[in-house]
Amino acid sequence: MKAKVSRKAHFNAAHRLYRKDWSFEENERIFGKCNNPEFHGHNYELIVSVTGEIDPETGFVIDVKVLKDLIKSEIEDAFDHKNLNVQVPEFKNLNPTAENIAMVIWNKLRPHFNAKDALEVVLYETPRNFVTYIG
Amino acid sequence: MKAKVSRKAHFNAAHRLYRKDWSFEENERIFGKCNNPEFHGHNYELIVSVTGEIDPETGFVIDVKVLKDLIKSEIEDAFDHKNLNVQVPEFKNLNPTAENIAMVIWNKLRPHFNAKDALEVVLYETPRNFVTYIG
Amino acid sequence: MKAKVSRKAHFNAAHRLYRKDWSFEENERIFGKCNNPEFHGHNYELIVSVTGEIDPETGFVIDVKVLKDLIKSEIEDAFDHKNLNVQVPEFKNLNPTAENIAMVIWNKLRPHFNAKDALEVVLYETPRNFVTYIG
Amino acid sequence: MKAKVSRKAHFNAAHRLYRKDWSFEENERIFGKCNNPEFHGHNYELIVSVTGEIDPETGFVIDVKVLKDLIKSEIEDAFDHKNLNVQVPEFKNLNPTAENIAMVIWNKLRPHFNAKDALEVVLYETPRNFVTYIG
Amino acid sequence: MKAKVSRKAHFNAAHRLYRKDWSFEENERIFGKCNNPEFHGHNYELIVSVTGEIDPETGFVIDVKVLKDLIKSEIEDAFDHKNLNVQVPEFKNLNPTAENIAMVIWNKLRPHFNAKDALEVVLYETPRNFVTYIG
Amino acid sequence: MKAKVSRKAHFNAAHRLYRKDWSFEENERIFGKCNNPEFHGHNYELIVSVTGEIDPETGFVIDVKVLKDLIKSEIEDAFDHKNLNVQVPEFKNLNPTAENIAMVIWNKLRPHFNAKDALEVVLYETPRNFVTYIG
Repeated sequence: MKAKVSRKAHFNAAHRLYRKDWSFEENERIFGKCNNPEFHGHNYELIVSVTGEIDPETGFVIDVKVLKDLIKSEIEDAFDHKNLNVQVPEFKNLNPTAENIAMVIWNKLRPHFNAKDALEVVLYETPRNFVTYIG
Repeated sequence: MKAKVSRKAHFNAAHRLYRKDWSFEENERIFGKCNNPEFHGHNYELIVSVTGEIDPETGFVIDVKVLKDLIKSEIEDAFDHKNLNVQVPEFKNLNPTAENIAMVIWNKLRPHFNAKDALEVVLYETPRNFVTYIG
Repeated sequence: MKAKVSRKAHFNAAHRLYRKDWSFEENERIFGKCNNPEFHGHNYELIVSVTGEIDPETGFVIDVKVLKDLIKSEIEDAFDHKNLNVQVPEFKNLNPTAENIAMVIWNKLRPHFNAKDALEVVLYETPRNFVTYIG
Repeated sequence: MKAKVSRKAHFNAAHRLYRKDWSFEENERIFGKCNNPEFHGHNYELIVSVTGEIDPETGFVIDVKVLKDLIKSEIEDAFDHKNLNVQVPEFKNLNPTAENIAMVIWNKLRPHFNAKDALEVVLYETPRNFVTYIG
Repeated sequence: MKAKVSRKAHFNAAHRLYRKDWSFEENERIFGKCNNPEFHGHNYELIVSVTGEIDPETGFVIDVKVLKDLIKSEIEDAFDHKNLNVQVPEFKNLNPTAENIAMVIWNKLRPHFNAKDALEVVLYETPRNFVTYIG
Repeated sequence: MKAKVSRKAHFNAAHRLYRKDWSFEENERIFGKCNNPEFHGHNYELIVSVTGEIDPETGFVIDVKVLKDLIKSEIEDAFDHKNLNVQVPEFKNLNPTAENIAMVIWNKLRPHFNAKDALEVVLYETPRNFVTYIG
């Protein structure tokens, strides 16, 4: 009896898409206005889903409150109202594209779940652009 | 030529999370404010999806009107404006967590579809918490 | 320089529409399935708006964090995961229709704002039914 | 390091569900009010998703701007503000059900992506009815 | 004790923006692709709001079920799955812009409410374009 | 015959709430984490509404395409993917709170409409916080 339990959360952050080892022109060509050196920002909407057995005792795959608190301590407290490039260590040498942010979130959350449970991260950068990462 | 056809529906209901065979303290420890003995409630949003072959005659996997009517007769009529614990037989001895409600909905709908078609139930308990069940 | 600042919040609750001084039949005739004696429930979505002068010092009409905390202490803590009829004193002798819940929320919040600022409460009982109350 | 990148778009169109080789009565029996000979219409919401390797150079699976422009040139320019039955060649002999529209969109987009990348099309015909096609 | 009660509904329809007494070129210049002679269509989302006294007996301004049924009989049954220009008499000589559709809806509903209650119609032509009409 | 025509748009931007003439501690006390010196950001959702007479010739208060293009040239091109504090002249000496951004948008748009038409700006800073400005 497996089910997938999903929890939505969000954080606001500034970022810039660029590579330090590329020229400004090359960054401009690939990343366009996302390469603004003064940064821009987003309301990131996040959906974290855990797939596992329904515990016959509780009827839970995972207590959503536990999931909510974990997203808060691991992701919101680390990313919210931050400049991702400057203030979040994981992006010191990693371009904070939606793909890479989703991967970092997944990597930070993965150790907190049972190895046999599947983890999925969906990250909305805007209401029209989003990314799904399953490891 | 397979496709997945999805239909959204909703129902409102009261519920309480607890086990009759546990002490009040144990229920409180595990289910927190969801264990309120006087019940609380939700607007449950439901998405039922059927995956099967597109009929080359009609261009339908399933007529959405048939799917809508089936959700109404099997789920909305049984759950809407009800107290799940007290008035819905399936939860007489089953804790009405989102996981278990999704499973019960899936079990009630499954016999109405072709065996070779896949069925998926997504149930939103709140706009931020939802569960997916595929059998 | 006036502006209206709005904050969304939500709470889940059980309720029943009925009058103690009416017969069951009369309640059934007027309130239909909302008169279920075992209760049903909703995810209430709440929008509280304050209209006032923009403070030229801060650029705020009101600090949204203050507004958020006020909604939490006055409304969410009092209504969330509760049975409105049984556990919320304001509805002991007042039918918890969306109109009356919105009025009670407005009355609870009104003393916390400057007399010259306007207060508006919008309450969604379901995604399709909502009520606006301005005093 | 795979991820799925999704982009939302939309188009408005008129259509009618019917088969030229069936009698009006047969069309009416199967397609009901969707068989209105004077047409009706929808705001179609479209989500196109590409699953592939994250390019370690850019951090992109695909540049969302490229995906957005492709959806515009291939789908929006062809379908938006059109009568699907009368003005879109793909539906000259194909009933424009949501299933078939999703399939046509998928077929039009598929040649533009790497063969090893997966393509998914989700098409909302109304906020409550939608179809997923993965080829 | 006044409150505003709102109900959401929707209908799907085909339409074309043009004036019979203008040349095709003039219609094209003013209405652009909305002048497509083969029609296009929308999922119209409708919000009807009634502002009046809260009845101290029931706690209702208006029973939402009454409002829902009225919208169905007067608007949905008349407009849903129709071609507005061809099949809805009110638009025989009136261009079905969002403004005019909202006005027609308001005029059809107005006689059904108390003269002292205010009526507001909000009509979404697309998720990004909408119109408000208050008479 | 008046109606209010509304158009939704959006832009992404970085910002920081603070006053140059206050100490860091004072800014921290009033603006909290919004005072992050490295900036944070948002997906701003914008609704611009114009209320005026319905032109009996066209059935329009204003052509929505004109409104869309005006929002693009005046607001999106100036604010999108920008750092509001550093790159948008209007905020050189004005704290970019949601209230002030809404006021600046209103002031930039106001000269483009007829003096007798009313203009309203609604600005969502997050899905839960928004501001309305009517001049």
